[in-house]
Amino acid sequence: MLVTCTKNELLSKINVVSKAVAVKTTMPILECILITADSAGMRLTANNLELAIQTSNMTDDVTIMEKGLAAPEAKVFFEIIRNLPDNIVTLETDENNTLIIKSGKSEFKILSLPGNDFPEITHVEKIIKYDVKSNIFKSMIKQTIFSVAVEDSKPVLTGELIEIKEDCFNIVAIDGFRVSFRKNIIDNKNENVSVVVPAKTLNEISRIISDKEDEMISMYFTDNHALFETEDFTVVSRLLEGEFFKYEQSFINEYTTLVRIDRHELLSSVERATLISRDSKKNPVEFKIVDNKMIITSNTETGTSYEEVYADTEGEDLTIGFNPRYIIDALKAVEDEKINIKFMSSLSPCVIEEIDGESYKYLILPLRIKG
Amino acid sequence: MLVTCTKNELLSKINVVSKAVAVKTTMPILECILITADSAGMRLTANNLELAIQTSNMTDDVTIMEKGLAAPEAKVFFEIIRNLPDNIVTLETDENNTLIIKSGKSEFKILSLPGNDFPEITHVEKIIKYDVKSNIFKSMIKQTIFSVAVEDSKPVLTGELIEIKEDCFNIVAIDGFRVSFRKNIIDNKNENVSVVVPAKTLNEISRIISDKEDEMISMYFTDNHALFETEDFTVVSRLLEGEFFKYEQSFINEYTTLVRIDRHELLSSVERATLISRDSKKNPVEFKIVDNKMIITSNTETGTSYEEVYADTEGEDLTIGFNPRYIIDALKAVEDEKINIKFMSSLSPCVIEEIDGESYKYLILPLRIKG
Repeated sequence: MLVTCTKNELLSKINVVSKAVAVKTTMPILECILITADSAGMRLTANNLELAIQTSNMTDDVTIMEKGLAAPEAKVFFEIIRNLPDNIVTLETDENNTLIIKSGKSEFKILSLPGNDFPEITHVEKIIKYDVKSNIFKSMIKQTIFSVAVEDSKPVLTGELIEIKEDCFNIVAIDGFRVSFRKNIIDNKNENVSVVVPAKTLNEISRIISDKEDEMISMYFTDNHALFETEDFTVVSRLLEGEFFKYEQSFINEYTTLVRIDRHELLSSVERATLISRDSKKNPVEFKIVDNKMIITSNTETGTSYEEVYADTEGEDLTIGFNPRYIIDALKAVEDEKINIKFMSSLSPCVIEEIDGESYKYLILPLRIKG
Repeated sequence: MLVTCTKNELLSKINVVSKAVAVKTTMPILECILITADSAGMRLTANNLELAIQTSNMTDDVTIMEKGLAAPEAKVFFEIIRNLPDNIVTLETDENNTLIIKSGKSEFKILSLPGNDFPEITHVEKIIKYDVKSNIFKSMIKQTIFSVAVEDSKPVLTGELIEIKEDCFNIVAIDGFRVSFRKNIIDNKNENVSVVVPAKTLNEISRIISDKEDEMISMYFTDNHALFETEDFTVVSRLLEGEFFKYEQSFINEYTTLVRIDRHELLSSVERATLISRDSKKNPVEFKIVDNKMIITSNTETGTSYEEVYADTEGEDLTIGFNPRYIIDALKAVEDEKINIKFMSSLSPCVIEEIDGESYKYLILPLRIKG
């Protein structure tokens, strides 16, 4: 292989694929980035066998003098490229599996594993295409992914449900203590989809996806894999197996107490209430709903806190405890100025939702308050 | 105690003293901040018994309704103040050692230890005063402190030598592999001083000191302590005992090879040469001085690097190895565009110094090059 390209484009392509480079592995080739220069162009690939990312072909002053493959260790390759003195970079391989990197008056020689040893990306047949706006997909992931299960006692809950039901595109995450739900209307006449994508895949996609308004991401699904494609990259991920929790049943529309409250004020108050608590699981924050206000208190070995927030209230007075972390996560995910919170009793979950619509719903189980 | 003050000033004062709060200790009072409200005003103190910092009296809308002391745990106190909803803060103690913090519609009650248990700051008699500009003191610390010894096999080297010799104010740090020296001319007619101040003290001073041009820091010394005073704070620190290395002898003025080189270009080249090295102690970088250039190479298990930097050279050609970390530290500390580097042989230290002056000197021992 003998190619020249620009440092800036090479760096941005390394950034895209680096999320799929394996970190700890017994197969050294998975810690490498595959550089491909062929008649189609020059591109990068990383593949940790769960998740593979391939960039589109480079477009910025690329010259391929000799086609070929190289697979340098990702971290060293990234650090060298990042620090090169000049924007023009030459990459060359020799017969001893050495990759020679030249730029300005700098020259590096590093080991490159044989490119042919690099694992191929699982082939996903492109049969039915589902399109979503990239920026919407990105925000839907960000607004739900925090409530994915961390422990894998039920592996399927370490992923997010992607559900396409006619023109509804839903993303749902559940960790056993809460349900986070986002809905978006799309233009779809294809058959319905219900798959669980590993959180890691969605996290990496949301990091590399553009948030420009006019870009689309296309999705294709098989029984075991999903393919996500934009102008800049292709991601192939395996899917999680197992039955996802039937979340629709948990969002009932009834309530005995309804609170309409300023999201930002409530968020600041709950955050302050956690300041005197080291472990939010052991120290629930208490919410007392009385006429036209919510009183937020906490009581720990460090001290006590008391907060009042003005609210529109409807229905019965109520006192209920929550893990403040869960309330904070949901309030941070939302962008609206005001939100509704529905309660049934002090032992039933609350639901945080949009005032005029159903584009998001956060269900949170209560904690029993001591004393 | 019953006082009101502003959140902003209280926060900035907490920031100043927080560097002297003990982190791990068996005496809980040392993890507290002492709040003092008396006829002189309201101020904060922290004291970890090695280093004590006291702020000047607060000036911003302070009202003392009831004099007194309080000693809340520093971290909780800081977090609560930082998150208060309103700029006006009320602090009140009750008979049960509770500190009540009120602001807007928030109220916190936290434990306060008895203020009388707080250790008094060591008294330093203000006999002879030495003045330096704050911003110069700050930069002199920053430009030398990186080469203080980390291990305390020789405890005196974990501090910096502060030396006042007639109108020269010098700061020196030595770790056994290098000497970092900064000099500044001051207006002094008092007797000479030679003391070793713990690096931690100087680090904290350099963090809280102003870098405004017109502010001064005053210093007073006793046999065992130093007192540093500005408009904003007083710092009292113990001194380190023991004989400091006689650094003057190591800076000889002779050389067989002299290089005048662009500091930034050399720095970037040496930084790049370290990219293929995981351990800079085991992998010296090689510097080859030939006619009008310096060739910088490294050779590790990861690969090789080659760099050329143009330089004005004088004297003999030379090949010498260094721990690149030490060269990088010195080059980063300096601000000049061009610097001189003097060499005697490939087994003797080099000296990086100012082209027209002696305000800084960095001596670095070489490493033997393999092969």
